[in-house]
Amino acid sequence: MNAPAQAQGLRRDIPAGFLQALSERFGDRFSTAEAVREHHGRDESPYPPMLPDGVVFAQSTEDVAWVARHCHEYRVPLIPYGAGSSLEGHLLALHGGISLDLSGLNHIVALHAEDFTVTVQAGVTRKQLNESIRDTGLFFPIDPGADASLGGMAATRASGTNAVRYGTMRENVMSLKVVTADGRIIETANRARKSSAGYDLTRIFVGSEGTLGIITEVTVRLYPQPEALSAAICNFPSLDAAVQSVIEIIQMGVPVARVEFMDAWAVKATNAYSKLELKETPLLLFEFHGTPSGVREQAEVVQEIARGNGGMDFDWAERPEDRSRLWTARHNAYFAGLQLRPGCRASTTDVCVPISRLADCVSATAADLDNASFPYTVVGHVGDGNFHVLMLLDPDSQQEWEESERLNKRLVQRAIEMEGTCTGEHGVGMHKMEFMLAEHGQDALDLMTSLKRAFDPHDILNPGKMIPRA
Amino acid sequence: MNAPAQAQGLRRDIPAGFLQALSERFGDRFSTAEAVREHHGRDESPYPPMLPDGVVFAQSTEDVAWVARHCHEYRVPLIPYGAGSSLEGHLLALHGGISLDLSGLNHIVALHAEDFTVTVQAGVTRKQLNESIRDTGLFFPIDPGADASLGGMAATRASGTNAVRYGTMRENVMSLKVVTADGRIIETANRARKSSAGYDLTRIFVGSEGTLGIITEVTVRLYPQPEALSAAICNFPSLDAAVQSVIEIIQMGVPVARVEFMDAWAVKATNAYSKLELKETPLLLFEFHGTPSGVREQAEVVQEIARGNGGMDFDWAERPEDRSRLWTARHNAYFAGLQLRPGCRASTTDVCVPISRLADCVSATAADLDNASFPYTVVGHVGDGNFHVLMLLDPDSQQEWEESERLNKRLVQRAIEMEGTCTGEHGVGMHKMEFMLAEHGQDALDLMTSLKRAFDPHDILNPGKMIPRA
Repeated sequence: MNAPAQAQGLRRDIPAGFLQALSERFGDRFSTAEAVREHHGRDESPYPPMLPDGVVFAQSTEDVAWVARHCHEYRVPLIPYGAGSSLEGHLLALHGGISLDLSGLNHIVALHAEDFTVTVQAGVTRKQLNESIRDTGLFFPIDPGADASLGGMAATRASGTNAVRYGTMRENVMSLKVVTADGRIIETANRARKSSAGYDLTRIFVGSEGTLGIITEVTVRLYPQPEALSAAICNFPSLDAAVQSVIEIIQMGVPVARVEFMDAWAVKATNAYSKLELKETPLLLFEFHGTPSGVREQAEVVQEIARGNGGMDFDWAERPEDRSRLWTARHNAYFAGLQLRPGCRASTTDVCVPISRLADCVSATAADLDNASFPYTVVGHVGDGNFHVLMLLDPDSQQEWEESERLNKRLVQRAIEMEGTCTGEHGVGMHKMEFMLAEHGQDALDLMTSLKRAFDPHDILNPGKMIPRA
Repeated sequence: MNAPAQAQGLRRDIPAGFLQALSERFGDRFSTAEAVREHHGRDESPYPPMLPDGVVFAQSTEDVAWVARHCHEYRVPLIPYGAGSSLEGHLLALHGGISLDLSGLNHIVALHAEDFTVTVQAGVTRKQLNESIRDTGLFFPIDPGADASLGGMAATRASGTNAVRYGTMRENVMSLKVVTADGRIIETANRARKSSAGYDLTRIFVGSEGTLGIITEVTVRLYPQPEALSAAICNFPSLDAAVQSVIEIIQMGVPVARVEFMDAWAVKATNAYSKLELKETPLLLFEFHGTPSGVREQAEVVQEIARGNGGMDFDWAERPEDRSRLWTARHNAYFAGLQLRPGCRASTTDVCVPISRLADCVSATAADLDNASFPYTVVGHVGDGNFHVLMLLDPDSQQEWEESERLNKRLVQRAIEMEGTCTGEHGVGMHKMEFMLAEHGQDALDLMTSLKRAFDPHDILNPGKMIPRA
């Protein structure tokens, strides 16, 4: 696959003395080694790497502020790097510059179990967080497929399988510590559950993909581990039947904690990868949270709706280890999909539409993809109206790449026409920039650009991402 | 009470020809009559009115855009006006200019019951909205005391009694139609439940108090009317016992729909105003939503917690009309309070702290207020950590006004020291501006200022509110 056309010839010159200053300040926590730069100039997108000029391994907010001040002074691009799991080219050093690795900011800063909040450094991953609070009876629900960092999850407005019940990073970030483009350190909010005191700086940085500031600490909401919890699989005769069931469940107001769709190919891949024996038809994975009787009630309503749409019997995962195995398998659907075509590279789509349009959007997309020259799978957080197509491409075939781009473009246009969005949870990065105009219109995009100019006047923070810059 | 010192001498000159142009465009929908200007130059705050130079009664987004373009061209201040129910001086024409009355934008634009969303014009009030969707089985939960307009509620990031379960306007606005400072019309988002496509323009305008753009349409989430619903009152021997019960209920994760605190004076006032016979001690008002068995479970847990803190027996409001009467009485607590001291004018506080600090904050505040020379009541959306003191002041006493301001200042400082906020739901307006620095710090405030400059370069939109302007 080719880098996008705009990737050519955009490297900015690094002023003399700049790399030397970094080296003096950070010693062996600053690297210009090819392997290190290669590792930091890529993500899980299908783009080939674009290398930064150097990588700083930060260990504190003060490190980040120092780097930001110097990048500001020398006009050097600065790209925050968390777990490297973004999917749309967010981390590629399109203009060169410094990749700022935040994985060393990996401490739990303050747990307030009595307020259901925790403050962590940006490099803490979601699994690490849940591990560290396990004994409190609380948990953090947001779970993108990868074991992403909390900073990266905030930066892309991530969600995952629990969002239908617990919301996304937009609803669950309470406050951020952020380093501004010129190296100042701010807190975006306090720990009150609600506030009307001024502009919503928190929500400005959530989803800003490193283009407005660098997140170094994240305060999120936690939830009580449910008293009762059950999970089940239900197979369906068709994609339509499964999606229609989800629509009815949501419209009934059932507070389902998770409802995930997998098409027959995704199930097949998951069976092979995760050593499961799921029936290979379109299916829904459910999880119910609540009191024992509440969970029972939810399950009954959902079973009735599923039956009405031709759903087969519920296959219950009763034991915690069975549930865990099931959800791990679901989280690995991306890697499982890759195994359907050994040696392939995946391109992933990510639209989200109002629930009333979901069946139409998924069906039309499947019909379009059935003519593709490469295999694909469909999985989705369908309770939110969000689904992904994993297109499995020959990495050496320019023709397949172009075909996948055309399919993605048609899918995005379809979603936007249905009052939906070009990205439900993966973010814009480089790959979705071309759709921003169609989705938002020129005037709204101009406002976004004016915000970017106000917060990052020299276009230093993750330049070339998110919004087309005049 | 005096206008704040900064109110003197700030009126801007209105260029010749401007008022004439408005008159030609709007005919009798433009008024410079003293009574009309007087009505639009005030709100429910204790400030004396500051009159705009004229009032335009808009009937469409295009009207709003026309006025904005002309105010932009002539550099004339523009203040959006909804229901006039703000509490912190939001609507006062500190610099003169035009008040833009949006109450004529009162249509339901599009109901999508199957997606749980509705789009309304900004002047639609919360009661009008719920009336219009009654037959759908859905409702809109957010309920500030007044029958505010949806546009105003979005602009102040309002909440109310249901926020503990359903969130605030921050969580429930899906999209806005906004007229920018220079008169362009944008949509901030689509109707997908989640999106990672760009900066969160919706959340930028929610809570911006008319200082960044003028909201003309609001798309909000709706919720299924609960299958079962019950409400109860519980009296407590002390303020501490009541607040401690709330803390334990929230920490147990009970999904209570409403939990409201009233002190003995607020109960006394409500009895007199709403012809009720509530026992005049500190009390909590509860409402539970869910399935019949879910509601029963919630009520059992809550009763047990209340008993453990000395709470008396639950007094249930079984019939819908009893519940409605109770909540109407709660919503009228502000007006009821005013009757405790006939002829008084109220100053209302509005802090919000993490739930773990709520008992400390309320107790210390009550102790401080017990020395005041005027009566007061305390009510609170305590499940959020948010409470209000209604201070009942002699309108002719400068001494009482100054004393109330000192008490408010100490309360805000106390809340901020407890990691809370100077306003949980009423907004900043003019009255909370002096606390913005203490709450956010200079660097965060600078970012807010740069956002204001980017979106409203000529400082035309509701100038002199929200953030101190250099």
